[in-house]
Amino acid sequence: MFDKLIEAFLKFPGIGPRQAKRFVYFLAGQDEKFLKNLAGLFLEIKKDIKQCDSCFRFFSKPGFDAKKPAFRCEICSDINREKNLLMVVEKDVDLENIEKSRAYNGKYFVLGGMLSLNGKNRLSSPRFKELFNKTGKERPKEIIIATSATIEGENTARYAEKILEPLAKKFQLKVSRLGRGLSTGTELEFIDSETMTNALRNRQ
Amino acid sequence: MFDKLIEAFLKFPGIGPRQAKRFVYFLAGQDEKFLKNLAGLFLEIKKDIKQCDSCFRFFSKPGFDAKKPAFRCEICSDINREKNLLMVVEKDVDLENIEKSRAYNGKYFVLGGMLSLNGKNRLSSPRFKELFNKTGKERPKEIIIATSATIEGENTARYAEKILEPLAKKFQLKVSRLGRGLSTGTELEFIDSETMTNALRNRQ
Amino acid sequence: MFDKLIEAFLKFPGIGPRQAKRFVYFLAGQDEKFLKNLAGLFLEIKKDIKQCDSCFRFFSKPGFDAKKPAFRCEICSDINREKNLLMVVEKDVDLENIEKSRAYNGKYFVLGGMLSLNGKNRLSSPRFKELFNKTGKERPKEIIIATSATIEGENTARYAEKILEPLAKKFQLKVSRLGRGLSTGTELEFIDSETMTNALRNRQ
Amino acid sequence: MFDKLIEAFLKFPGIGPRQAKRFVYFLAGQDEKFLKNLAGLFLEIKKDIKQCDSCFRFFSKPGFDAKKPAFRCEICSDINREKNLLMVVEKDVDLENIEKSRAYNGKYFVLGGMLSLNGKNRLSSPRFKELFNKTGKERPKEIIIATSATIEGENTARYAEKILEPLAKKFQLKVSRLGRGLSTGTELEFIDSETMTNALRNRQ
Repeated sequence: MFDKLIEAFLKFPGIGPRQAKRFVYFLAGQDEKFLKNLAGLFLEIKKDIKQCDSCFRFFSKPGFDAKKPAFRCEICSDINREKNLLMVVEKDVDLENIEKSRAYNGKYFVLGGMLSLNGKNRLSSPRFKELFNKTGKERPKEIIIATSATIEGENTARYAEKILEPLAKKFQLKVSRLGRGLSTGTELEFIDSETMTNALRNRQ
Repeated sequence: MFDKLIEAFLKFPGIGPRQAKRFVYFLAGQDEKFLKNLAGLFLEIKKDIKQCDSCFRFFSKPGFDAKKPAFRCEICSDINREKNLLMVVEKDVDLENIEKSRAYNGKYFVLGGMLSLNGKNRLSSPRFKELFNKTGKERPKEIIIATSATIEGENTARYAEKILEPLAKKFQLKVSRLGRGLSTGTELEFIDSETMTNALRNRQ
Repeated sequence: MFDKLIEAFLKFPGIGPRQAKRFVYFLAGQDEKFLKNLAGLFLEIKKDIKQCDSCFRFFSKPGFDAKKPAFRCEICSDINREKNLLMVVEKDVDLENIEKSRAYNGKYFVLGGMLSLNGKNRLSSPRFKELFNKTGKERPKEIIIATSATIEGENTARYAEKILEPLAKKFQLKVSRLGRGLSTGTELEFIDSETMTNALRNRQ
Repeated sequence: MFDKLIEAFLKFPGIGPRQAKRFVYFLAGQDEKFLKNLAGLFLEIKKDIKQCDSCFRFFSKPGFDAKKPAFRCEICSDINREKNLLMVVEKDVDLENIEKSRAYNGKYFVLGGMLSLNGKNRLSSPRFKELFNKTGKERPKEIIIATSATIEGENTARYAEKILEPLAKKFQLKVSRLGRGLSTGTELEFIDSETMTNALRNRQ
């Protein structure tokens, strides 16, 4: 029981053995009401937090009709957002952070995973097939691959580009990537060769 | 729903808004089975993880008879442990860490909280009354106050000593504190005045 | 004496009171030979390390004729380097780091300082006048302002652009800045608004 | 020249290649006056900063008679300090830090080095012989070995004790070490086994 809970918490993002243990002690010290309430919330997650059929992000929409087959999140249904721009992100928190920056007004697609280099996908594999289908159906003018500037992110971006290539040719879609260069705070004294090369190439 | 879950996770030890949100997204992405299993574990915590009637630590004891009124953890019931020594700790993980050091072979008492300086007790208040009662009943020869060497820890220790004072006099119990001085790795170049004063006074 | 040395070391880049003191104790513990040798090196710095008349970087050129009025460093005299490209950097170590990246094959100009926002220039003020003169004389086709992506760096870049503006118009020089965007390792989850805006605008 | 200076700065405590280079550039950018002044200070260090004949710490005593053979620092000459207590420290900054704590009013002896485990003594070897001689001559009542709680510090302390053993027996000197235990800020949750063992043994 103790071990099963530890095991479950270890699956939570960013949680190691020490904190998993602290969680169990924390829960053991709570009253029945708190635990029942929490368990109840867990059972209802699927009812109230839905995955958008179109962009695959999770969104909360209390009171919606669970029998209706198609759900669209508020971004996908927003007619004021540029539908010709599709930004491909890895995960929900990336999308949220981009929204917070107010720099983007197009649509999104959440891959839900990264192509790992060693073949170990921690949670789930990227939705490349769904990206292909959505692109073929909606034919945006530009698809922006917005993965992190990490090895896994670059790898995932490259793979997404390859998959989108036939559609890009057929429908003359532009497939772009976020610009590389100096991010806020970068000092020339400590800049790495890759960033320097990118910053120079993308000078303007 | 989303917000209620965030709110609940914010009560978990060491969890801030960003990680609470990541937890919710993580859970939203899990299948029903995982969620049901987790909710089930939460509801059973109280059945399988019990608080020791004697030292107040939490311990896992599957299959024990819930109708029996008194529970003793394996440390409190261990006749090979020195019953004349009682170590007072703040919380379960402290106790676990001390056990791991194999430095101590007496009994424990878990206060379950610290006396905060600003009057805000985050989770629960220290069990001073229970400490008093247990001491009066069991009359160990020595009580070691093993709180952290922080302001809150010192404050809690001082208060515990004061509460135990009448019993200490009446039954000639010794009340001690963990030794202060150089901890492993301390360098004289960076030592603080308080530690230097303690290290000098406790030289041997 | 002790205090004078401390004071002198405090002027060294990145040295605070504690390390200044350690330096003095270190020197006090060295033998006469070491100290004489070090003092000798200090007196000869100006003989062997020269500042390039053209780009203002410091370079070591033992045995050159100190009476000759004009010195050019090996980069400025290298005919294999693109003379139509001039990169403006803040300081010598920035230049060295860019050279290490092998991303750039043009010429340089070392400003030797940053425009601080609070008016306190730590060591020296930027050589804007010399930049203006060199640009007017050599007329490169493009000047790349390569300051750090910090507030001071941006401020200095803006000022340099303004100063170069009349020359840029007159001789049709392009004045550019290093590209902004995702630097190596940037994760979308933690990206700041400014970098996101830049990365989106500079997508390709 | 450039490389010789780098090499010299690399011998300074806590200085790595990057900072050594920054120092050289910094010096190259200074005027002759600054460099001459600094070189002058280096040459005078030995005149104004002296090593105490009795405790081997460095101290500044401008204007003292360099021909007088014996120098005593102000601590060694202070008749208000407890001469029966001798504290053995590794280096000058340790002594300074202890003085700052105002926890100690006895005399000192600066070893000037640590016994390294791998046989590489970075700057100089500990003055064990001088410690032996001073102890035999001055016969304090107690010698406190105040090395850091690191592996090298413990090793040096052990060796010092062994060397002092015959004198300790002969003159009935007490040889002690700084107390071990919880240093300020130590939390029980993160305490290491060695510190826990010491804190428990030294409880009071």
